[in-house]
Amino acid sequence: MPLYSPFTLLHQSSQCSARCGRVATLHGSVETPVFMPVGTQATVKAVTPENLAELGAQIILGNTYHLFIRPGHELIRTFGGLHKFMHWDKPILTDSGGFQIFSLKELAKITEQGAEFRSHIDGSKLFLSPEKAVEVQEALGSDIMMVLDTCIPYPATYDEAAKATALTSRWAQRCREAQSETGQLLFGIVQGGMYPELRQLSAAELIEIGFDGYALGGLSVGEPKEQMHAMLDATVHLLPDNHPKYLMGVGTPEDLVEGVFRGVDMFDCVMPTRNARNGMLFTSSGRVVIKNSCYREDQGPVDERCGCYTCRNYSRAYLRHLFQSSEILAYQLNSIHNLHYYCSLMAEMRQVIAEDRFVEWRGEFYARREEL
Amino acid sequence: MPLYSPFTLLHQSSQCSARCGRVATLHGSVETPVFMPVGTQATVKAVTPENLAELGAQIILGNTYHLFIRPGHELIRTFGGLHKFMHWDKPILTDSGGFQIFSLKELAKITEQGAEFRSHIDGSKLFLSPEKAVEVQEALGSDIMMVLDTCIPYPATYDEAAKATALTSRWAQRCREAQSETGQLLFGIVQGGMYPELRQLSAAELIEIGFDGYALGGLSVGEPKEQMHAMLDATVHLLPDNHPKYLMGVGTPEDLVEGVFRGVDMFDCVMPTRNARNGMLFTSSGRVVIKNSCYREDQGPVDERCGCYTCRNYSRAYLRHLFQSSEILAYQLNSIHNLHYYCSLMAEMRQVIAEDRFVEWRGEFYARREEL
Repeated sequence: MPLYSPFTLLHQSSQCSARCGRVATLHGSVETPVFMPVGTQATVKAVTPENLAELGAQIILGNTYHLFIRPGHELIRTFGGLHKFMHWDKPILTDSGGFQIFSLKELAKITEQGAEFRSHIDGSKLFLSPEKAVEVQEALGSDIMMVLDTCIPYPATYDEAAKATALTSRWAQRCREAQSETGQLLFGIVQGGMYPELRQLSAAELIEIGFDGYALGGLSVGEPKEQMHAMLDATVHLLPDNHPKYLMGVGTPEDLVEGVFRGVDMFDCVMPTRNARNGMLFTSSGRVVIKNSCYREDQGPVDERCGCYTCRNYSRAYLRHLFQSSEILAYQLNSIHNLHYYCSLMAEMRQVIAEDRFVEWRGEFYARREEL
Repeated sequence: MPLYSPFTLLHQSSQCSARCGRVATLHGSVETPVFMPVGTQATVKAVTPENLAELGAQIILGNTYHLFIRPGHELIRTFGGLHKFMHWDKPILTDSGGFQIFSLKELAKITEQGAEFRSHIDGSKLFLSPEKAVEVQEALGSDIMMVLDTCIPYPATYDEAAKATALTSRWAQRCREAQSETGQLLFGIVQGGMYPELRQLSAAELIEIGFDGYALGGLSVGEPKEQMHAMLDATVHLLPDNHPKYLMGVGTPEDLVEGVFRGVDMFDCVMPTRNARNGMLFTSSGRVVIKNSCYREDQGPVDERCGCYTCRNYSRAYLRHLFQSSEILAYQLNSIHNLHYYCSLMAEMRQVIAEDRFVEWRGEFYARREEL
């Protein structure tokens, strides 16, 4: 493990594993725990970079798989990287493409060397190795790169999971070796399916290689919530405390609270933006399905406790009208609100951790939702 | 004709009919010549009110037909009008619904009393009379209301055109009589098809009733450009110079230049926003179809001469990528650019009219496009 870590611990809860910290990157530092809005195709869907900054986003996620296919990392390289291409000057984390390739199922073929797959856009044959995944992410110029991993389906047998986990470790080693001295951070990804002993082995192997941060992959893949929480209980503490801990692709507001409670520093998920486009809004007292007729004449904001652009300026009735009319502005305003909700929730958690009252706050968080 | 007019003439070209003026409304004044972005369903598609203000929009148009059907004028009345409902505090002009009903063709039945039609959304039976059109627009609280008119198809026989024109005059009278003292302006609409003598008769009848402004309807309905320009030559001067003159539903940048040249003060059209969503961008040197492969690696802005948010921050290559990826941000950025182009074009025309060099400028405008 290298002596250097980009992570500075600022507050450790005396009540649980929750903690506040700071991750230093090439484009500035990120206060944790943090939620990263997903910008799959070089845009967080339906919002501008200025919207993101205003709603409190500190770092966004770009998808290597998507950008590799379209418009291509070489094109983005000519722009000086993804930041300049998409007009976002704060940190960016790029995933490695492993999860998207895993989602292609029979369209992808995994070998020791890497992953062969066909583009979901034009069917062309493509190949991503650990070395290529690093090369692409270096061309994208992300602040945090992820190793290429192999995901494990749920459910999976112990043997399947063990095989995939071992391959992930070998690929992680190759990613570390392939990395140039760009100042970009590289995070390892702990796999192991739902088997704690495999998770433990995976974590140990990655720590042996040494990464700037450690992620938990292969969770929230269809397993029951209780099992995900049990896996978090069994694995978050395996990751070194002096490095950022990232729970990939998670989740609901409740998942974020449970992750932070267990010591997770970083999260990403398409849920706030995808649900926004489907008319589902997150509020401090639960979920609002904006098309419901009860909002037809509702002059109040989506959430009385929310200070986002949408809640400051528009009523539930107007948002319902826009959504019913399939107006693009509906997607814009809903996305701004949901992302603001997620980012504010994280800011609130950072605050109560700093005040060492996270556990009480967690109780209040659930109580507010039950009042509804 | 009432002695009062909301129009103040600021500059009259010595070279042609082009002029600058100011229209006073309940929500402030509008500098003319002006282009009004179309906000059909209580939103200018894909842009926020703040975007509109920044790109130079002074006044927007709302569609009475659409708002009457969804969400309904009574709902909007409970919000204190369309301005508050949609979070836009500058002037709004509402059309009367006449053109949309005309577009329904066999789904609408026109009688002396008004227009019976079926909602394009749920097929329910609806009725709009001149009195109802005023009532709806008063509920919407627009700054400028339009009389309910009957449109004339192109081509139409003299008799068809004469009949529809006479009905429009009788409806205009009823609109004027139905109007309450809200301070909202009411504009008459000159019809007459492609028959100059009917246009003349229509204008005379409307002037006799007396309106706050006068519009030319039923142009840009499929007739050749030359015929539209000939009709403008034959009719703009029929409208009283001490009132605003509005050419409805027009048009291309070239149409705006030709309209201003002939003395038109106000325009509206869906073209900048609709074309934006189709990937067609207006520039000082002509049109750009952003999906074209020649823009794949193009690091320049859409228009070197443009200062809009899109051109300040994004490249043609990025806009092409967004459009090819069907990203919502493509529609946002393209709409901002095209509306900025239209509003800037009008601002430029106001400037050169004030400097009394509109005719030279018009020559340069066409020359720049030919250079392409």
